[in-house]
Amino acid sequence: MIDRPLIALLTDFGLQDPYVGVMKGVMKAICPAADFIDITHHIPPQDVRAAAFHLMNTVDDFPRGTVFLIVVDPGVGTQRQPIAVQTDDYAFISPDNGVLSYTLANRTVQTAVTLENWWDYGGVKPRRLSHTFHGRDIFAPAAAWTANGGQLTDLIANGAIALHPETLVGLPPLRCKQDGPTLNGEIITIDHFGNLITSIGPLIWHDDGTLTLHCKSAPTQLISHQATTVTLGDVQLRGIHRTYGDTAPGDVLALVGSSGYLEISMNQGNAANALSATIGDSVTLTQSEAAP
Amino acid sequence: MIDRPLIALLTDFGLQDPYVGVMKGVMKAICPAADFIDITHHIPPQDVRAAAFHLMNTVDDFPRGTVFLIVVDPGVGTQRQPIAVQTDDYAFISPDNGVLSYTLANRTVQTAVTLENWWDYGGVKPRRLSHTFHGRDIFAPAAAWTANGGQLTDLIANGAIALHPETLVGLPPLRCKQDGPTLNGEIITIDHFGNLITSIGPLIWHDDGTLTLHCKSAPTQLISHQATTVTLGDVQLRGIHRTYGDTAPGDVLALVGSSGYLEISMNQGNAANALSATIGDSVTLTQSEAAP
Amino acid sequence: MIDRPLIALLTDFGLQDPYVGVMKGVMKAICPAADFIDITHHIPPQDVRAAAFHLMNTVDDFPRGTVFLIVVDPGVGTQRQPIAVQTDDYAFISPDNGVLSYTLANRTVQTAVTLENWWDYGGVKPRRLSHTFHGRDIFAPAAAWTANGGQLTDLIANGAIALHPETLVGLPPLRCKQDGPTLNGEIITIDHFGNLITSIGPLIWHDDGTLTLHCKSAPTQLISHQATTVTLGDVQLRGIHRTYGDTAPGDVLALVGSSGYLEISMNQGNAANALSATIGDSVTLTQSEAAP
Repeated sequence: MIDRPLIALLTDFGLQDPYVGVMKGVMKAICPAADFIDITHHIPPQDVRAAAFHLMNTVDDFPRGTVFLIVVDPGVGTQRQPIAVQTDDYAFISPDNGVLSYTLANRTVQTAVTLENWWDYGGVKPRRLSHTFHGRDIFAPAAAWTANGGQLTDLIANGAIALHPETLVGLPPLRCKQDGPTLNGEIITIDHFGNLITSIGPLIWHDDGTLTLHCKSAPTQLISHQATTVTLGDVQLRGIHRTYGDTAPGDVLALVGSSGYLEISMNQGNAANALSATIGDSVTLTQSEAAP
Repeated sequence: MIDRPLIALLTDFGLQDPYVGVMKGVMKAICPAADFIDITHHIPPQDVRAAAFHLMNTVDDFPRGTVFLIVVDPGVGTQRQPIAVQTDDYAFISPDNGVLSYTLANRTVQTAVTLENWWDYGGVKPRRLSHTFHGRDIFAPAAAWTANGGQLTDLIANGAIALHPETLVGLPPLRCKQDGPTLNGEIITIDHFGNLITSIGPLIWHDDGTLTLHCKSAPTQLISHQATTVTLGDVQLRGIHRTYGDTAPGDVLALVGSSGYLEISMNQGNAANALSATIGDSVTLTQSEAAP
Repeated sequence: MIDRPLIALLTDFGLQDPYVGVMKGVMKAICPAADFIDITHHIPPQDVRAAAFHLMNTVDDFPRGTVFLIVVDPGVGTQRQPIAVQTDDYAFISPDNGVLSYTLANRTVQTAVTLENWWDYGGVKPRRLSHTFHGRDIFAPAAAWTANGGQLTDLIANGAIALHPETLVGLPPLRCKQDGPTLNGEIITIDHFGNLITSIGPLIWHDDGTLTLHCKSAPTQLISHQATTVTLGDVQLRGIHRTYGDTAPGDVLALVGSSGYLEISMNQGNAANALSATIGDSVTLTQSEAAP
């Protein structure tokens, strides 16, 4: 057991209500040594895909042994299962609705188990059990119990049902579809600065200045950062830049964002406002046939 | 003294300014071992009742020994007293404006003391003493001092004035008034998801499927979850549900929320927006005379 | 090295994205014992001056040894330098864009060093090195390394370039200009409650009831709290008050805010909304020639 176990939280609860605070209170009562990091609580309500995208992009930056508590749960109170998943580096507690799928695609699952009635198999009996707030009553206690060193294999030994990783709910892959010289994608999320983060990626800059695309639903390929046009509605952007400062303040540009996805930004401005762009808008990246 | 004492914060400061951060800095300078949990800082400005409601609904989920720092303080700089209250499970630091009253109604107060000039009686002399930010200058130091193991009885032994629990400022009870077959209440708070949380409660589901009401200003009674109509303006909702998933996405429904209060929600939608509802709107729950 | 080193964060990242959370994950991987305090993440995007103002006003409330991580970085990806600065009480990690200048004006810099390629001189090699998110890739690792006890002098001994404090980028002083009996200033920031915080200050109340002004760009002087008029657009306010409660609810008043700057507020209301005021609006304080 780690001296100060770390629990990272990702939800759509926002911060205006006591929901996040009460989950932390519940966890501190079970695991007094726990430290918390909020990844974010501002996932758009019920947007499982946005949560899955952010989790995939941040998980590797956390220390080994971190317990991830992810509650974006439009199906609370239905038949959807609460689950716990152990990989060789992390533990994940969440509803089984695909929110883990992008993250688990690159990992080996060691153990996955349902948390349905998990208190009968060595888990933590909730102080109260609501039909609408499993974050407080099931997920937070399970995260704290795991942070305390609880082992999923012990739950299974006591009768909890193990889950085969292949049976976990998955999400469709991010849209990144090849159509001749064009890659079709969409805006996945818009950040606080108005940067439009798309589903086209990951893109990797190499030391020799070349750029390659590695998305799962299109062939891995070299992308010319010069002879490429990025299109969003009426806006056509020539070339892919490395950073905002390559352009003048107020310029709109395409670049590779900090998580490796194609991003449309305005240098020292807000691209979302300037372009009236919203989540789900189509974005294409087209490579010229002629050399630059 | 606890190894890592826990201080839980509840304020109307919001998060855009450094006010919450600076209170934590002050507390860390006094009690370096302190851990913090933010219950919320988004109480509507000066809404003492909303803070009292949220504190009552969350306090039991925190570990014994938690120090609660509550700063919703429209009377800062007036004659209202800063106070500290010790119960057998928790400590509370706040202005004496009723914000503790719902929570203390279910507890025995061991000690209550004014924090007026408390530094003269063994408390912490503030680095500066403003007339507008007692959160930083009085309340946060008192919370950190308490988290460090400071005893209110020692302040009193040194000359601080003990307060009789009955003399603490109280709030009117939540509106939950019986009028024939109808209970009259109102919307107390609207959460991030647009759920309308009312003053009618607590309601408790029993294992045999029955539902009882236990509010202080109406008789304790059995509520039929079927033969009941919940009314908000023009909207009449038949029956009280257990969870969103009992209905179709987009349906508006009445249910018992996670803290036991009657709630009006939209399954996977935002009831506040759909119904144009605001805090203070009247809500009634009427029981049919005929059996279901 | 401190048992639980404290890192205080100040950024313009907001909380809707995972940017703050991922910086904390990176820091926990480097310094597992670190505690974090968020000063605020809601600095208006790219508003270096607002960040400098808030840092100056809060820094003294934090315990000695705190590491400040400040990322308001409109110049990310340009030639602006990432820097680390050690004073006798604190350490600061930030871009060299003036954000530290108000704070360092009152301190002696012991060591200042560039963090450009600092991993070659004993620093932390980032897991990835983006062109747009140096908060994650350079600043957070440097803050965690410093919290772990890393010494800037060791970086310099290994070849990192020491910086002379006078060569660090500065900001123009806050506007507080004497023109006959009038001091000219402006609104620097508007807080969550709608209080208008101006550049006129610091103002200090003395025990004998007098008030003095100590800004750098005007002579130190006695201010009459009665025979003074504060003007914002069409609004003229007579006198400077000590606290909201000196007036009736709904009154607009001038007072000395909790950090010592002249503030225009509405008792139990929102002055910014009531007066349609915005950041940058001119505010003047004029002293009558006649005695009160």
